[in-house]
Amino acid sequence: MTTDATAAANTPNASPSTAGPVGVIGLGSMGFGVAQSLLKAGFVVHACDVRPDVLARFVALGGVAAATPAALAAKVDKLIILVVNAAQTDAVLFGESGAAAALPPGAIVISSATVAPEYAVQLAARLEAMGLVNIDAPVSGGAIKAAAGEMTVMAAGAPAAFARCSALFEAIAGKLYRLGDTPGKGSTVKMINQLLAGVHIAAAAEAMALGIKAGADPQALFEVISNSAGSSWMFQNRVPHILAGDYTPHSAVNIFIKDLGIVLDSARKHSFPLPLTATAHQMYLSAASAGHGGEDDSAVIKIFPGIDLPAAGKQ
Amino acid sequence: MTTDATAAANTPNASPSTAGPVGVIGLGSMGFGVAQSLLKAGFVVHACDVRPDVLARFVALGGVAAATPAALAAKVDKLIILVVNAAQTDAVLFGESGAAAALPPGAIVISSATVAPEYAVQLAARLEAMGLVNIDAPVSGGAIKAAAGEMTVMAAGAPAAFARCSALFEAIAGKLYRLGDTPGKGSTVKMINQLLAGVHIAAAAEAMALGIKAGADPQALFEVISNSAGSSWMFQNRVPHILAGDYTPHSAVNIFIKDLGIVLDSARKHSFPLPLTATAHQMYLSAASAGHGGEDDSAVIKIFPGIDLPAAGKQ
Repeated sequence: MTTDATAAANTPNASPSTAGPVGVIGLGSMGFGVAQSLLKAGFVVHACDVRPDVLARFVALGGVAAATPAALAAKVDKLIILVVNAAQTDAVLFGESGAAAALPPGAIVISSATVAPEYAVQLAARLEAMGLVNIDAPVSGGAIKAAAGEMTVMAAGAPAAFARCSALFEAIAGKLYRLGDTPGKGSTVKMINQLLAGVHIAAAAEAMALGIKAGADPQALFEVISNSAGSSWMFQNRVPHILAGDYTPHSAVNIFIKDLGIVLDSARKHSFPLPLTATAHQMYLSAASAGHGGEDDSAVIKIFPGIDLPAAGKQ
Repeated sequence: MTTDATAAANTPNASPSTAGPVGVIGLGSMGFGVAQSLLKAGFVVHACDVRPDVLARFVALGGVAAATPAALAAKVDKLIILVVNAAQTDAVLFGESGAAAALPPGAIVISSATVAPEYAVQLAARLEAMGLVNIDAPVSGGAIKAAAGEMTVMAAGAPAAFARCSALFEAIAGKLYRLGDTPGKGSTVKMINQLLAGVHIAAAAEAMALGIKAGADPQALFEVISNSAGSSWMFQNRVPHILAGDYTPHSAVNIFIKDLGIVLDSARKHSFPLPLTATAHQMYLSAASAGHGGEDDSAVIKIFPGIDLPAAGKQ
């Protein structure tokens, strides 16, 4: 039995049993949560991931493991791809044992990696040429929201495709934004969100660093600014990591090197200047170059010299 | 009769009649609201301002006009200074007909302009040498919160001084943060808040500019990001001005040239680098140099070339 009957009975508007099985490629921090949410909603969920231990954890929850994207694709007519970037999206769709050639005609590919809008447009055209349907659907919200079925989805695609995926999106999304009928519009909005998220984390680090240098109490600084006009979602979310001295990577410095890199590359194609994004990107590069690339993105504060950061275990 | 008896009766915890008259120097967007809130709480309020029309409006509400800071100082043992910067603070306290020399011994000077922490420390020492008491108390929240008696106050000073001003702060502050016993700590936190506020407005402009260039719908972009991890207090507050094409200055580009200038000068004294603040400062300077210094700070988006901003009156 691959479904969680209790959870399904508690999900009033979804009718996943008539919606057919779905595939999830990539069981990372977001993908695992999405797969879990689909199981809870009563879907038969096929998944694949390169890590056998993660796949075993998924099977223990009631999911069906697939050996390759192609093996998965033969079982479903809808799949969602939650890998890290465009290169991995290409690999799982078009690489050796890729999903695209194995999907039935008219199947829907929901692509959710953070990619350049230009790539999203090309991907949709390539899938369409193979008789497949694409929804450009980057996500936001983090692992906890993914596991709760409460992600924000920034989506664009044909209305008929959304109609076929209504139960699926209901199971995984707290907010589903429909940003247009043509793929690319979702990735554009996600790109702008990443621009701001990346700049805001670096700004939070710069602000806390100067505050500490100037002798302010870091905890008081955090509390006052969280309630003032200088606050941001990222300030409130990431500064507690700095205060706790805990740089366990919820999302790593290297992720923002990638994401702001996508933003800068895309803007350069428009010959468009991004002074703050370029500066923040350099700050993350400095952090990675000093050996902090795999730490939590709040570790960008470690580029500021001559300050005593709160130590771990002091909270 | 200079008090508003009805409002005083409705303010349960204040006992302003026993607290004595108070002075307000500077009836700008924040100062006028503060003076109004004090009147509403039942205080006898003396005020001065260089603009006769603003002073007349204050008198019409029940306030007492003073011709000079010195004339005001002779009538009160507590005053709050809500001028624009350190130079104006110096002028109204120590210039011709300045308040400091005319205040009674032990009087309290609450200094609320946004100034460098170093200046705040020096100011307190100078007042103390004259037998006066300083509370370093920069404010945040804007004109509407000031008029409602709901400002955020970031304050530092001697506990005895706060005890004497409890009714006063209750009348004007929604949140009173006590950041230490020595002046300077309040201005440090305010400086960090301004760093973030200034960077976040410039980041909001950069993000909306790229979004428009990349073909996103500006209104949809605003809505999605307001509900995503890329949001900030300033993004939510200032982007509606851009969407409405309305650059009426609630707070002008020139204010952030001043405030980020204070932050950069203060950090330079610590030989401390601020890559994002320096970049944002250059963006505001670009906007002012192109003739937008007196417009709303969201007009920093006008530095981005080749995009069609929403026009006024289209909303």
